[in-house]
Amino acid sequence: MIEKNIYSYNEGDGKNKLLLGGKGANLCEMTQMGLNVPPGFVITTEICLKYLDTKTLPVGLMDDVKHHIKAIEKSSHKGFGYAHNPLLVAVRSGSSISMPGMMDTILNLGLNSLTLLGLIKETGNERFAYDSYRRFIQLFGKVALDIDDEHFDKHLNIVKKRVGAAEDVDLTATDLKEISQLFLDVVKEQTGHDFPDDVYEQLEIAIKAVFKSWGGKRAIDYRRQFKITPEMANGTAVNVVAMVFGNMGNDSATGVGFTRNAGTGKNEMYGEYLVNAQGEDVVAGTRTPKAVQEMEQEMPELYTQLVDLRNKLEKHYNEVQDYEYTIEKGQLYCLQTRNGKMNATAMVRTSVEMFQEGMITKEQALLRINPESLDQMLHPRLDPTHSAKSLATGLAASPGAASGKCVFDADRAEIQGNAGEKVILVREETKPEDIHGFFTSQGILTSRGGKTSHAAVVGRSMGKPCVAGAKGIAVNIKTRQAIIGAQVLNEGDVITIDGTTGKVYLGALPTIKPEFTDELKTLLSWADEIAHLKVLANADTPTAAHKAVEYGAMGIGLCRTERMFNDVDRLPIVVDMILAEDLKERQAKLDELLPIQRGDFKEVFKVMSPRPVTVRLLDPPLHEFLPTEIHLFEDLETLRQLRSTIKGMEIFQFSRDIPANLHTQHANPFMSEDALNKVIAKKAKMLKKVRELYEVNPMLGHRGVRLGITNPEIYAMQIRAILEAAAECIKENITINPEIMIPQVITAQELKRVKKSVDRIQKDIETTQNVKLKFKFGTMIETVRACTRASQLSEVADFFSFGTNDLSQATFSFSREDAENKFLPEYNKLGIFQDNPFEVLDIQGVGFLMRKTVKWGRQTQAGLKMGICGEHGGHPAAIRFCHHIGLNYVSCSAPRVPCARLAAAQAKLLENDYHLLDE
Amino acid sequence: MIEKNIYSYNEGDGKNKLLLGGKGANLCEMTQMGLNVPPGFVITTEICLKYLDTKTLPVGLMDDVKHHIKAIEKSSHKGFGYAHNPLLVAVRSGSSISMPGMMDTILNLGLNSLTLLGLIKETGNERFAYDSYRRFIQLFGKVALDIDDEHFDKHLNIVKKRVGAAEDVDLTATDLKEISQLFLDVVKEQTGHDFPDDVYEQLEIAIKAVFKSWGGKRAIDYRRQFKITPEMANGTAVNVVAMVFGNMGNDSATGVGFTRNAGTGKNEMYGEYLVNAQGEDVVAGTRTPKAVQEMEQEMPELYTQLVDLRNKLEKHYNEVQDYEYTIEKGQLYCLQTRNGKMNATAMVRTSVEMFQEGMITKEQALLRINPESLDQMLHPRLDPTHSAKSLATGLAASPGAASGKCVFDADRAEIQGNAGEKVILVREETKPEDIHGFFTSQGILTSRGGKTSHAAVVGRSMGKPCVAGAKGIAVNIKTRQAIIGAQVLNEGDVITIDGTTGKVYLGALPTIKPEFTDELKTLLSWADEIAHLKVLANADTPTAAHKAVEYGAMGIGLCRTERMFNDVDRLPIVVDMILAEDLKERQAKLDELLPIQRGDFKEVFKVMSPRPVTVRLLDPPLHEFLPTEIHLFEDLETLRQLRSTIKGMEIFQFSRDIPANLHTQHANPFMSEDALNKVIAKKAKMLKKVRELYEVNPMLGHRGVRLGITNPEIYAMQIRAILEAAAECIKENITINPEIMIPQVITAQELKRVKKSVDRIQKDIETTQNVKLKFKFGTMIETVRACTRASQLSEVADFFSFGTNDLSQATFSFSREDAENKFLPEYNKLGIFQDNPFEVLDIQGVGFLMRKTVKWGRQTQAGLKMGICGEHGGHPAAIRFCHHIGLNYVSCSAPRVPCARLAAAQAKLLENDYHLLDE
Repeated sequence: MIEKNIYSYNEGDGKNKLLLGGKGANLCEMTQMGLNVPPGFVITTEICLKYLDTKTLPVGLMDDVKHHIKAIEKSSHKGFGYAHNPLLVAVRSGSSISMPGMMDTILNLGLNSLTLLGLIKETGNERFAYDSYRRFIQLFGKVALDIDDEHFDKHLNIVKKRVGAAEDVDLTATDLKEISQLFLDVVKEQTGHDFPDDVYEQLEIAIKAVFKSWGGKRAIDYRRQFKITPEMANGTAVNVVAMVFGNMGNDSATGVGFTRNAGTGKNEMYGEYLVNAQGEDVVAGTRTPKAVQEMEQEMPELYTQLVDLRNKLEKHYNEVQDYEYTIEKGQLYCLQTRNGKMNATAMVRTSVEMFQEGMITKEQALLRINPESLDQMLHPRLDPTHSAKSLATGLAASPGAASGKCVFDADRAEIQGNAGEKVILVREETKPEDIHGFFTSQGILTSRGGKTSHAAVVGRSMGKPCVAGAKGIAVNIKTRQAIIGAQVLNEGDVITIDGTTGKVYLGALPTIKPEFTDELKTLLSWADEIAHLKVLANADTPTAAHKAVEYGAMGIGLCRTERMFNDVDRLPIVVDMILAEDLKERQAKLDELLPIQRGDFKEVFKVMSPRPVTVRLLDPPLHEFLPTEIHLFEDLETLRQLRSTIKGMEIFQFSRDIPANLHTQHANPFMSEDALNKVIAKKAKMLKKVRELYEVNPMLGHRGVRLGITNPEIYAMQIRAILEAAAECIKENITINPEIMIPQVITAQELKRVKKSVDRIQKDIETTQNVKLKFKFGTMIETVRACTRASQLSEVADFFSFGTNDLSQATFSFSREDAENKFLPEYNKLGIFQDNPFEVLDIQGVGFLMRKTVKWGRQTQAGLKMGICGEHGGHPAAIRFCHHIGLNYVSCSAPRVPCARLAAAQAKLLENDYHLLDE
Repeated sequence: MIEKNIYSYNEGDGKNKLLLGGKGANLCEMTQMGLNVPPGFVITTEICLKYLDTKTLPVGLMDDVKHHIKAIEKSSHKGFGYAHNPLLVAVRSGSSISMPGMMDTILNLGLNSLTLLGLIKETGNERFAYDSYRRFIQLFGKVALDIDDEHFDKHLNIVKKRVGAAEDVDLTATDLKEISQLFLDVVKEQTGHDFPDDVYEQLEIAIKAVFKSWGGKRAIDYRRQFKITPEMANGTAVNVVAMVFGNMGNDSATGVGFTRNAGTGKNEMYGEYLVNAQGEDVVAGTRTPKAVQEMEQEMPELYTQLVDLRNKLEKHYNEVQDYEYTIEKGQLYCLQTRNGKMNATAMVRTSVEMFQEGMITKEQALLRINPESLDQMLHPRLDPTHSAKSLATGLAASPGAASGKCVFDADRAEIQGNAGEKVILVREETKPEDIHGFFTSQGILTSRGGKTSHAAVVGRSMGKPCVAGAKGIAVNIKTRQAIIGAQVLNEGDVITIDGTTGKVYLGALPTIKPEFTDELKTLLSWADEIAHLKVLANADTPTAAHKAVEYGAMGIGLCRTERMFNDVDRLPIVVDMILAEDLKERQAKLDELLPIQRGDFKEVFKVMSPRPVTVRLLDPPLHEFLPTEIHLFEDLETLRQLRSTIKGMEIFQFSRDIPANLHTQHANPFMSEDALNKVIAKKAKMLKKVRELYEVNPMLGHRGVRLGITNPEIYAMQIRAILEAAAECIKENITINPEIMIPQVITAQELKRVKKSVDRIQKDIETTQNVKLKFKFGTMIETVRACTRASQLSEVADFFSFGTNDLSQATFSFSREDAENKFLPEYNKLGIFQDNPFEVLDIQGVGFLMRKTVKWGRQTQAGLKMGICGEHGGHPAAIRFCHHIGLNYVSCSAPRVPCARLAAAQAKLLENDYHLLDE
């Protein structure tokens, strides 16, 4: 069989992108669909490889090219190199994988001293012809003859200066003619040869140049960077295609379109066009294009053709198309089509409607949407048309945009927020005692802390936008100012924060509201039908539980009881519990907390009924509920000074200088000296306790089940609150599925110990309340030792839940907060890591352990229920991995639930394509 | 075959401890060796189990017992229950595993109103007879009849009070006769029956009581606690053995002996005896026993017999024996023998000598010694005879005892130490800047910090005793006092610290010098011949390298370069390097450090030639080289106050109040105001830097290779120093084997990056110095991710070294310092952990990972060299595990090297007996 080196668009296989490149194959396909595509042909990628290997074109190739040019001449009624009605061609690269800008293209090839005259005559536009000519000479010179742009630009600029032309468009035909001649001289000067006047010589040089660009440094680096292997793309094809012109008069035009509305997804004509113009004119923005609907009036017949083109494209590709066309003298040419990239709203709507129209299956409807993009629909976002410059940038800690007045403490945020003002809480960092300020703020901005800082975590859990660790901002609580470079923000100044990008702006910027559309609900219901993984939410309060249900969570996979401690009516009791001098005093405080927690649990159970609710017992170290040492120290200094200089009512005038958190600790401007003394005594006690609880590495300290074991009274209270809440629900005939989960476990001994306490309390409640309690008892898997002991832990636990935040930290031996502000950016820059392992699950390390753990855990208990509740649980790549290793559920923050539901379905649909690296 | 229920000592199988119990088997063995053992028999453990099952003795058993009693009567010429020459017996429990104090024994059984008279007549000692009688009644009453001691004690006390007897020994025969009667009445009162007068009835009740004690709560708890399974011990045997009395006149005696000197191991008679006495008299201490040598004069014939007994015992058991004997009327009875427990010196000497005498093999010589015990020989230790009460207890952070005057800062320690005084450096905690004080101190005492605190780690590495974290001590630097409860230690007061126990004493206590004896050297050379694991030392300086060689280290497995930074002539340069404003300034400081590090490396290489030396590049975070924030803050406050109130020379009088570390930072009492200003400026700069470098979790921060990658100039300097030192050695014809090791690695990318730098520097040195460098390049395995990526890391690394300190922390997700002072003691108390995982390698978790890592690492590189250099590397259990999983070496602190060498040999010898739990 003789190898075929060149395919006319009439014959090339539209699917064979490896051989013909993406562009070539696509043009073949469109041609064969019967669309009016400018005639052309494609030289295969195999020729490219041969050329790069031997440095010569195969014998006879150019004869073959000539043969195909003849065919173009015939179908276009134009002549290549002819003075009359000259054929000009574009020579375009195109490999199987799009590598935008990496390889070369030459337009208007075929122009020379002779054909130029033909072009002038044909178009009646001398300026256009010379402009095309000088552009062709420079582009050809650069791409094919290796002449630097600067040699051309020098002459261009001299002429422009001389004739007083500010821009290229100010140049006349005469100017451009002169420039063309100067450019021809440049070529002679730089290469020692005349610019090739022979059009086939031009063509041969151009083809070789395009082939060469595949082996250029730029292209090689690009392929390395994006890991494009020879199996994926090997060599570039060359397309030689007749030029068409949309600027040949008022019966000519150029335009772009989407087959559906790219903004809303509505099934309607959508796009813009310009009469008597080239594609360049649209891009340059010198003329304002018209909406495609106007064409119906202006060029009714062509409009009908365009509608037909659009219908054919969608029918053929079964996907929204983004297409380009040119009308040359009343003739509509389709130049290009590709799958349309649209916003999430449009993607979702078209998915649902295309299924309803029978164009695609449900599976296709689900697979064509990037799950991450759904986020756009669920948070208020900045109107993308805004042009404001950001003041500062921090970490994108909790998505969404919000505007409001700066306030510098939680008390003021509460007062002003409750008074109906929109405020942004601005702090160096936040602590649990600031929590009441979160409820009434539109968003939170901090100058310290990472994506797992208090502000970030609470922001996410409440669905409030948060920008954290915006280092450029100096927050001064005493002067109540935030200083950003030369800009001073006073309390009350309005700012906008964008938690999706981490940017901070002055003033109120326009935002777009979130939209949980009916189409999205429909789409996600299809996802749920298909997915194997259940999608649960991390939610800590009844309010958050409501939100979780709204987003379609199938339960709560992580209810952090400490978040319940943080509320403004509980924290003082928690603090007193921690400060207790003895067990009796502590128990008294726990007894106060019991009904509060029970009430919360009951409410959460009710909201979620009949879905499962996994409650995690207390996890953080106790000192996290207290202010920091330095804060307390400073507070005490201030208070003692106050006491020594003023009394009673006079404190009022100083209250502005008192650090905000004083207020929550019951100091207020109207208190008596006695009362002040009490506050001081309390603060002193807190300071002592904080010092006692000091830990060198708080992440590696006295927390989780370790705290539950050394202070069994705390877990006992929580267990009782959960089970009593369950008992109340049962008595009210509410179907519930509670689960108790233990954090930080490293050995089955710990689980057994807590289980004993659970058993005891269960028995007590069952006996005294005459109910039968049914619940699960499980463990977080967030320490490495828990992984290694999985087969022992599964003897005690009913379920495992991977806590990949802590597990990642333990696996990497660095903490998120210490890494993100120090070496992690450098590691990413150097390519040591591709990602931040606290955002993107590290499949090779952490994932490796998870996979082993699943195996070891199910060795003992074959059907062991397993899930993930770390932050990774809401990310599509992690979800795919979790599906692959056989987890039963993922749990993530409520606003990530829709994304996770879609990703879970995609994981199932794509499960056979999943391959782990390094396996 | 008819089951045999009772074995006479003449016929029982001396090896069958499961059936006869340890004591019974041993008595059988001695009897059959021809030793004069009191006649007796043993009822098997099988009978015990049957009895516990059916609650009755097998039919005919008591007949069988009678039959055996007759045999005793015959051989002892005494009669059981006879008035003339009555036979008394002891009824003793004895299972195959010794459970001291857990089961019951009854002595003098066979006494009743009739035999009592015979005993009086036979002994001529009425008091002895009544004393024996009342003791028998009480013991029998308690053990066999369940009568509480209080009922007997009540009467005893009444009589004692009435006759004015302070102690039991003050009671006369008449008193004891009265008491015996009262005791008989107690039995009647409490049981409703007369005390059994029939001796066979006594015997039957006693046998049943002993059997029952196997199933008692005490014994069951004990077996659970010590994990004694039924395979190890099942039921107790009962020994019935004729009583012999050493108090029947001057031809009677009782004594104990070792077959060799238990203190020195010398092959000589060793022991003590008392004429006309019982074992009790020796224990009570009312009479002073004589050295066995005196018996040669006093009872020459019996002495000859005793020498013969001793020889026979050793010859038979091939082990030093600890034996007990009684001489009754000129007749020597051997009552018991067991392997002698001796101190390390004696164990080592006897091992070597018994091999030389042909008694044991080298293997046996090695196996009979507990490797841990060698520590005793290598550190000065407190004379065990001291009776001082400790003032306080801290952590046993670095073994050995030392006395000296308290000093409260490193400068003073240096001055006084250099002046020839013995000082103990007492601090709240130490920092690198205190290092010069370590060199000149006898030991270090701190009130804060754990076993991995600076003081502890440096203390161990220098072999200086250290007690760390002695919380009871309040150190006040300003007043230069340490307050321990009511005791105030002023500077200059002498204290003694025991780093082996963690105790602190007032005054200078007597100590015993360490002794690295010739026998120990011999023994360890045998160990080296047998062991598979090489034993290397962790040593950071030339001095430490010398010590390592002394202890027989086969190389250095961990040379921590940061320790070289800590020396007093380097630290200021290191600090300046850290404070550098730009790379140029930093490089200048690194250039200063280069020759210093090169010199150190060269010296270490020379000392260790031709052994391997593994140099680990910088590991700790940079802030560890700076004082703490609070210290700097306080220093600055003090200095600024000084500046504002006094000038120049007048500073002197205040210098006592300046925190000690000021001095090392170049402040001194005689400096000018200008100089003071400079110190202040420097301190302010340091404070700024410390704040910049602040980390929330320093163990999880910017350290190890992460620092090496973000600041490549630091590693480059260290690599150059190592390779230039190597080049110099090569040119001086010194055989060296350097290795470069990278800490904290988590991905092969990091290794590759550092390797590039190594290659570049190597090439540069090889070219400019015309040498050929040969060295290894390897990685620490101290992060979990490194474990999971072992097969990738082994593509780059020539060797792996497990850093089990950090790896344990990462596996458990808690840090040593935060665990040891908080929840770990509670965990141990509750039995959740058996051990402290930072001391005893956690085989199930950390070990599990190590085992997998070895497998994964050698998948890529079959012969990959692997070792361990964490603190566990010197502990026998960990060494056994390391041998089991196929490591090539262990590396530990120099003083642990002898222990490790012995343990490595034992690991090899016992390799077939090794079984991991949970496998």
